[in-house]
Amino acid sequence: MPNLRLALSQTDPWVGDIARNCDEVVRWTRQAAEAGAQLVAFPEMALTGYPVEDLALRGSFVEASRSALVELAVRLAAEGLGELPVLVGYLGRSEQAKPNRPAGSPQNCAAVLHRGEVVNRFAKHYLPNYGVFDEHRYFVPGDQLSVLRLHGVDVALAICEDIWQDGGRVSAAREAGAGLLLVINGSPYERNKDDARLELVQRRAAEAGCPLAYLNMVGGQDELVFDGDSLVVSAEGEVIARAPQFEETLLLVDLELPAASANHTDGLLLVDGLRLVRTELDGGPEGEPGNGKQSVYEPQPRLSDEAEIYGALVEGTRAYVRKNGFGSVLIGLSGGIDSALVAAIAVDAIGAANVHCVSMPSRYSSQHSRDDAAELAERTGLNFRTVPIAPMFDAYMEALGLTGLAEENLQSRLRGTLLMAISNQEGHLVLAPGNKSELAVGYSTLYGDSVGAYGPIKDVYKSLIFRLSRWRNELAEERGEVPPIPANTISKPPSAELRPDQVDTDSLPDYDLLDTVLDLYVEGDQGRDAIVAQGFDAAVVDRIVRLVDTAEYKRRQYPPGPKISRKGFGRDRRLPITNRWRQG
Amino acid sequence: MPNLRLALSQTDPWVGDIARNCDEVVRWTRQAAEAGAQLVAFPEMALTGYPVEDLALRGSFVEASRSALVELAVRLAAEGLGELPVLVGYLGRSEQAKPNRPAGSPQNCAAVLHRGEVVNRFAKHYLPNYGVFDEHRYFVPGDQLSVLRLHGVDVALAICEDIWQDGGRVSAAREAGAGLLLVINGSPYERNKDDARLELVQRRAAEAGCPLAYLNMVGGQDELVFDGDSLVVSAEGEVIARAPQFEETLLLVDLELPAASANHTDGLLLVDGLRLVRTELDGGPEGEPGNGKQSVYEPQPRLSDEAEIYGALVEGTRAYVRKNGFGSVLIGLSGGIDSALVAAIAVDAIGAANVHCVSMPSRYSSQHSRDDAAELAERTGLNFRTVPIAPMFDAYMEALGLTGLAEENLQSRLRGTLLMAISNQEGHLVLAPGNKSELAVGYSTLYGDSVGAYGPIKDVYKSLIFRLSRWRNELAEERGEVPPIPANTISKPPSAELRPDQVDTDSLPDYDLLDTVLDLYVEGDQGRDAIVAQGFDAAVVDRIVRLVDTAEYKRRQYPPGPKISRKGFGRDRRLPITNRWRQG
Repeated sequence: MPNLRLALSQTDPWVGDIARNCDEVVRWTRQAAEAGAQLVAFPEMALTGYPVEDLALRGSFVEASRSALVELAVRLAAEGLGELPVLVGYLGRSEQAKPNRPAGSPQNCAAVLHRGEVVNRFAKHYLPNYGVFDEHRYFVPGDQLSVLRLHGVDVALAICEDIWQDGGRVSAAREAGAGLLLVINGSPYERNKDDARLELVQRRAAEAGCPLAYLNMVGGQDELVFDGDSLVVSAEGEVIARAPQFEETLLLVDLELPAASANHTDGLLLVDGLRLVRTELDGGPEGEPGNGKQSVYEPQPRLSDEAEIYGALVEGTRAYVRKNGFGSVLIGLSGGIDSALVAAIAVDAIGAANVHCVSMPSRYSSQHSRDDAAELAERTGLNFRTVPIAPMFDAYMEALGLTGLAEENLQSRLRGTLLMAISNQEGHLVLAPGNKSELAVGYSTLYGDSVGAYGPIKDVYKSLIFRLSRWRNELAEERGEVPPIPANTISKPPSAELRPDQVDTDSLPDYDLLDTVLDLYVEGDQGRDAIVAQGFDAAVVDRIVRLVDTAEYKRRQYPPGPKISRKGFGRDRRLPITNRWRQG
Repeated sequence: MPNLRLALSQTDPWVGDIARNCDEVVRWTRQAAEAGAQLVAFPEMALTGYPVEDLALRGSFVEASRSALVELAVRLAAEGLGELPVLVGYLGRSEQAKPNRPAGSPQNCAAVLHRGEVVNRFAKHYLPNYGVFDEHRYFVPGDQLSVLRLHGVDVALAICEDIWQDGGRVSAAREAGAGLLLVINGSPYERNKDDARLELVQRRAAEAGCPLAYLNMVGGQDELVFDGDSLVVSAEGEVIARAPQFEETLLLVDLELPAASANHTDGLLLVDGLRLVRTELDGGPEGEPGNGKQSVYEPQPRLSDEAEIYGALVEGTRAYVRKNGFGSVLIGLSGGIDSALVAAIAVDAIGAANVHCVSMPSRYSSQHSRDDAAELAERTGLNFRTVPIAPMFDAYMEALGLTGLAEENLQSRLRGTLLMAISNQEGHLVLAPGNKSELAVGYSTLYGDSVGAYGPIKDVYKSLIFRLSRWRNELAEERGEVPPIPANTISKPPSAELRPDQVDTDSLPDYDLLDTVLDLYVEGDQGRDAIVAQGFDAAVVDRIVRLVDTAEYKRRQYPPGPKISRKGFGRDRRLPITNRWRQG
């Protein structure tokens, strides 16, 4: 059986920065070449970043991507890297008209670059149009199965969703007698998705009847985080190699693969109307002999649930701050657990020196809250100041004589205005501390604690906030570092402190109960009756469902934040604001 | 040729309020029966409202819609209306599994109710998945052509997008030899869309080879406004009847139609895989003899461009306020033209007694601004008060010592907080005064003048704001009423008045130029080079394009408002915030 040394470039393409992304392809291709790779792959739409959303509808952007691809092929050859075939995703366009879609419509494409030329181009066959994905909005599906023949092996190529649906390129790869199925992805992180992904890849490898190499990107893009987790499995489902999550890396693997034997004609029709297009590449680097089904790197240990989620929050926050050109962030520190966790995440993402926090006590702020905020600052070394809001509060109360909820919300909005003023004056990006439980039931103040450009924990339920905070402190202890979050912040009962002796449980169910019902209603899309039938108190369920439904207008104005669940409050969940449906 | 008296119920279904919507079907069906109609139609998804967005993914909601349909058939018969066939849109589900879509997946359906039973059900064949539409996300396409045979005529049935794309049910109707093509719609308003719609309906009637009856809904739903404009054209394209825009109405029309003669078998395969399903209805009301190709009502005069746009803004605002259960609104009145137009719209939407305005002058507010705000209040009779922001401003300045943009934004945010405080205290819904030009270039303050639940003019460019204001004043003069907007508000140069002697043109191009470039860039998706090639100054275009691109984060947190253009800042335009593409 022939050997193939495959390099999977688990990189972080930046949306819209085509020049940078091309530089990165050259840089990683050089590393792959130096390591003796015989084929190197880059993620889905690696030239443009992913997802580009409505940029796909802009002709000038499509053309920039297409010409960058051609220039990249030339440049790779000019820099002595032309012999190594490069598979790379880009934004392309259709050649032929389809029913109700003209020729030249955008496509989610990939191409093989070799010896200064684009030797093969194809487009994603299955287009995801659920959850956060809108690919029917943009793309015309591709209808060919590209197969590369190199070093005696037939490598079938596919893009992301192609393996998440039945049939299509997986079945076609088997029909074409492929020796390897290579799939490039932009597959966003979700809790436990690495397990689902492994299972899927194993199943698809069996269906294709050959090893499957799965390459994913890393990095953050608005509400999405890409966790990498690239992997290679044998036809029998054995894990041959697996890359770490959340890290750029080159996963090198030596594969002993079945020799190409099938001699199908180009243009042969396979399942789902896929046409076979085979490109034979001769030459190329010889490569050191591999030792059969062995990766050059050992498979990495898997992250725990908490480590994985926390990693996603840090990566999402870092990416948003950096890619949007900011160097520092600003957080309002209440002494409570939400803002404390956000501060810990920010410190891990961009360093304590770049994290600015302000305590904004009112007359209802307890001494322990002020102390806890200050202690967090001391533990982490972030920049800390205190600005009391009493003078602003008094000015409004004198003019308007507010009471009740109006008075409570005023305090929150005074803090929001204060944060934005410091942000405008000093140039920090504001992080919003809202959690998913609060956002779900509308237990937050629009233009108050919802102020910010990014919400690092907006997809994290309160009960998980406690778990992550404890986990982060334990990690510090294991490492012999000072735990960032004060013990009292974790142990005290949550309170917004907007009136005397207020605690969250005055107006909300216990968070464990609340979060369980929310998970059924929000992630599970279960109706009120179905939830009650599982044994939950009907009055509690009714109340929660009603709170969630009527808070949609607040969520619509909330900043984006990293999605970590099956269904986040963002592109994932699109409910009308004007909605009279009140029965779950 | 047989006669048919057709009733098109141009109604306003409320999203999620199935009980109310069923009541409305009964009420309008009774009117149609009393008027001697032999067939009555209701809009697309009239039982659930439209669009229901992710409610379609909730099984309990789908089931509620399906059982309401069956109950409605029974109720109509019980109320003595069973003899009149009723065509009504609802949310249904698929019977059979399709590739990668299980049986029971949601469908955008319509049904015919007759004598207490559901006698025909079918689903939309073509699903729109562009602009504001996401129907591939929700629905499985239908694959039958339903034909009703009644009173000797074959009536082919279709839903909305079925006639916006080539082939499909239009061609199938011709193949099946239909005598009438009846299409129910949920087609949102866009400027000049009535002309496009008429042209389309005429073309499709010619293709179907028979008269075409087009029924649309009215009302507002979040960012969408439905303008009605239902119409009936002959096979030759002659307009037989046309309903007014923005008004609930029953469009009654007597049609002389070709007798059913084709005797195709049920289940016959037509174009695009559509199966013919014919339902023969006997009996039914006899109906008075018509007088051939004549509507019972005369076609209405068409609205002017300004009247149509203004009508959409009023309808969108009224619907948002009423359907969300509010009785009153609150607006910050600066004396400028944007808030003045918003106030005029609000007064027309819900009455001056329900409109509350507050002037919030700072030290930079000119006397003419204060006077103009007060004069508008006097002219319209809305509720007006003044709350100066100096004390709040001083409190912040003392604590933070702000300068430049931070000081300017502070004033705007103090006003936002003030509006929200009054809103919380008194229960009004806040309207945001931002226009499309400002939103495009980010010339607005997040959590300041962007505060509000609804933005009535967010899709209106500044140059159009001037036109609409003049038009509204002229309309008042024609009617012998007091023009709502002070002349000085319209004639003075626009200014945010956040620093001494500031005018908008200090930092922005002239609005006519700005709006022209924005139209090319935002609505037209044209690149920077293409715009410059049309003769615009390159530096100006570069600056505008850059401003638009970097303001995406502000737009994402802006409230919804009525879409009146080809492309509004909402579901229509989905750009990444994190986006390094800077060449248009």
